[in-house]
Amino acid sequence: MDVRAAVAFEAGKPLSIETVHLEGPKAGEVLIELKATGLCHTDEFTRSGADPEGLFPAIFGHEGAGIVVDVGAGVTSVKKGDHVIPLYTPECRGCKSCLSRKTNLCTAIRATQGKGLMPDGTSRFRLGKQMIHHYMGCSTFANYTVLPEIAVAKIREDAPFDKVCYIGCGVTTGVGAVVYTAKVEAGAKVVVFGLGGIGLNVVQAARMVGADMIVGVDLNPARKEIAEKFGMTHFVNPKEVEGDLVPYLVNLTGGGADYSFECIGNVKTMRQALECCHRGWGESIIIGVAGAGQEISTRPFQLVTGRVWKGSAFGGARGRTDVPKIVDWYMDGKIQVDPLITHTLKLEEINHGFDLMHEGKSIRSVVKYA
Amino acid sequence: MDVRAAVAFEAGKPLSIETVHLEGPKAGEVLIELKATGLCHTDEFTRSGADPEGLFPAIFGHEGAGIVVDVGAGVTSVKKGDHVIPLYTPECRGCKSCLSRKTNLCTAIRATQGKGLMPDGTSRFRLGKQMIHHYMGCSTFANYTVLPEIAVAKIREDAPFDKVCYIGCGVTTGVGAVVYTAKVEAGAKVVVFGLGGIGLNVVQAARMVGADMIVGVDLNPARKEIAEKFGMTHFVNPKEVEGDLVPYLVNLTGGGADYSFECIGNVKTMRQALECCHRGWGESIIIGVAGAGQEISTRPFQLVTGRVWKGSAFGGARGRTDVPKIVDWYMDGKIQVDPLITHTLKLEEINHGFDLMHEGKSIRSVVKYA
Repeated sequence: MDVRAAVAFEAGKPLSIETVHLEGPKAGEVLIELKATGLCHTDEFTRSGADPEGLFPAIFGHEGAGIVVDVGAGVTSVKKGDHVIPLYTPECRGCKSCLSRKTNLCTAIRATQGKGLMPDGTSRFRLGKQMIHHYMGCSTFANYTVLPEIAVAKIREDAPFDKVCYIGCGVTTGVGAVVYTAKVEAGAKVVVFGLGGIGLNVVQAARMVGADMIVGVDLNPARKEIAEKFGMTHFVNPKEVEGDLVPYLVNLTGGGADYSFECIGNVKTMRQALECCHRGWGESIIIGVAGAGQEISTRPFQLVTGRVWKGSAFGGARGRTDVPKIVDWYMDGKIQVDPLITHTLKLEEINHGFDLMHEGKSIRSVVKYA
Repeated sequence: MDVRAAVAFEAGKPLSIETVHLEGPKAGEVLIELKATGLCHTDEFTRSGADPEGLFPAIFGHEGAGIVVDVGAGVTSVKKGDHVIPLYTPECRGCKSCLSRKTNLCTAIRATQGKGLMPDGTSRFRLGKQMIHHYMGCSTFANYTVLPEIAVAKIREDAPFDKVCYIGCGVTTGVGAVVYTAKVEAGAKVVVFGLGGIGLNVVQAARMVGADMIVGVDLNPARKEIAEKFGMTHFVNPKEVEGDLVPYLVNLTGGGADYSFECIGNVKTMRQALECCHRGWGESIIIGVAGAGQEISTRPFQLVTGRVWKGSAFGGARGRTDVPKIVDWYMDGKIQVDPLITHTLKLEEINHGFDLMHEGKSIRSVVKYA
């Protein structure tokens, strides 16, 4: 079938709106009509050429929501008409990782996904005779896409597509890091570095689970207002701190953070996030993605005296099991999504969405398909 | 009273056997007649002058066992005649750390202990008019010493002093790191860097809890035999590995270690220990103490993809609660201590003990008091 898509032909160039051919679902695959997709920094990371593993031409986008319109042979977990969120982290429930009960990082289709291909080693997209790569197993910058059944989360039908698409990446990444990776408990003191689309979701998840103190750290004073609405109790602008930030935060939290979250992707703030943790038990969770080749460092004494350094990908959430729960939390009013979606665009305006991201004017831009 | 002690007058100089004056226990304190003490690398770290926080003159030693011979006012948890192990990590059961249920690093007397003094800010030891510092709150290189009640673990009376003294530091550090810090589960794959006095205790604790695969990594082939007796299933000599050690270990363990332990104190092996862990859930525990100012580093991607970097001090064991349990495990034959104590010395021979340590001839040397 013919679909409309924003195609990335070359690193660093704007996306191009094209009519692309999409082959129907093979065995174990699902055809989805996308209703909306968010624009994430990760799409931009690859579009810009900064991602050393970026493949071109490709259809980006990994934060979508839509409806199943066809299923391939053997598909049993979803059917035509189901509302779904595509998953860049699948959940096969059968691989070593899924069976470990210790990680959400299913490895069932990792090899082909990393090559921009479906599990059978081919692409469903082409333009004329040119193969177009899938992206993160999702390719939601098209109004239709094909995914493996194991990479589709079925959600409730009353959830608005143009809001819950954000749960396909940013919301789950931030909320999940608090709930599934760190398992923050009521009464905890939390420090959040970076109050963008991920950090604000960390803040509201910390409020949801009953954290006592939620400190937000950001250089942009404009983030204070919305972060407070999401539950932030203390704002720290490093520019306004005299002396070192780490002892300032340790003092502010009465000994250090029980949990800290790095939502920037800067290796210097990753170190600060670890070192502002409480001696004996403070855990620091890296969410942000650092530039290629960059390294984190600290004195091992920080760990020997009880701090823990870990990371979180897709919020530690199992896609098919946990994403529908997060949709419920949104529908039940436990977390907010609407105020984070600052811009709604047409597919044709998608490059403007990346401009807004660069200008720091948007928290999240969402493309709605007609 | 007069006591016999090995006194360190100056960094880098041999210890000097002296008759020193020991004041009796004040309120909340306990006088202990030591029956034996181990010689640990940490004593040597300070004796040599490498420890930037080392204080002189001092009576070193922190791995002892003995009998309570007097108690100060208000002491209720031990009485004359009790067999005890001095604790360099106390357990007050009332401070923020003890009440957190998340750490063993009691802070009740940290400030004075770091200054080589008893909690009231004075020393009990002097030589003529010269004050002698306590060391790590223990000073077991004397045949009598005074400790706060909260720094004394009461143990069973049938346990031999010249063996269980080692539980005062090395055994607990290694065994506890497996049991309390990492909480290694049956079936796990474990990699241990360094098969010295700590590493061998990690190995035997991993066996005790039912680990399936216990890989020992050491440059010294002579460690293979004893490590196998302690439960090591695979020996890796990095000198004999072609190519990089990390992929070799990942391959050997079928994807990476569930838990790795660094028992050397080398920041390079700390990185290898982290990176040989399994994607998604592998945890690396730093036990070894690195040189002053040295730093660990890695790419944050290692953590974002699920590896966890933590450390362990005194094996995560609560001194008064857990040390008596480890003594029981020894007496019940669940762990071995005797083969690790390779040399028994008189106090007068203590400098020879440090020579043996440097020459790599001893695993543990123990001084027995007459």
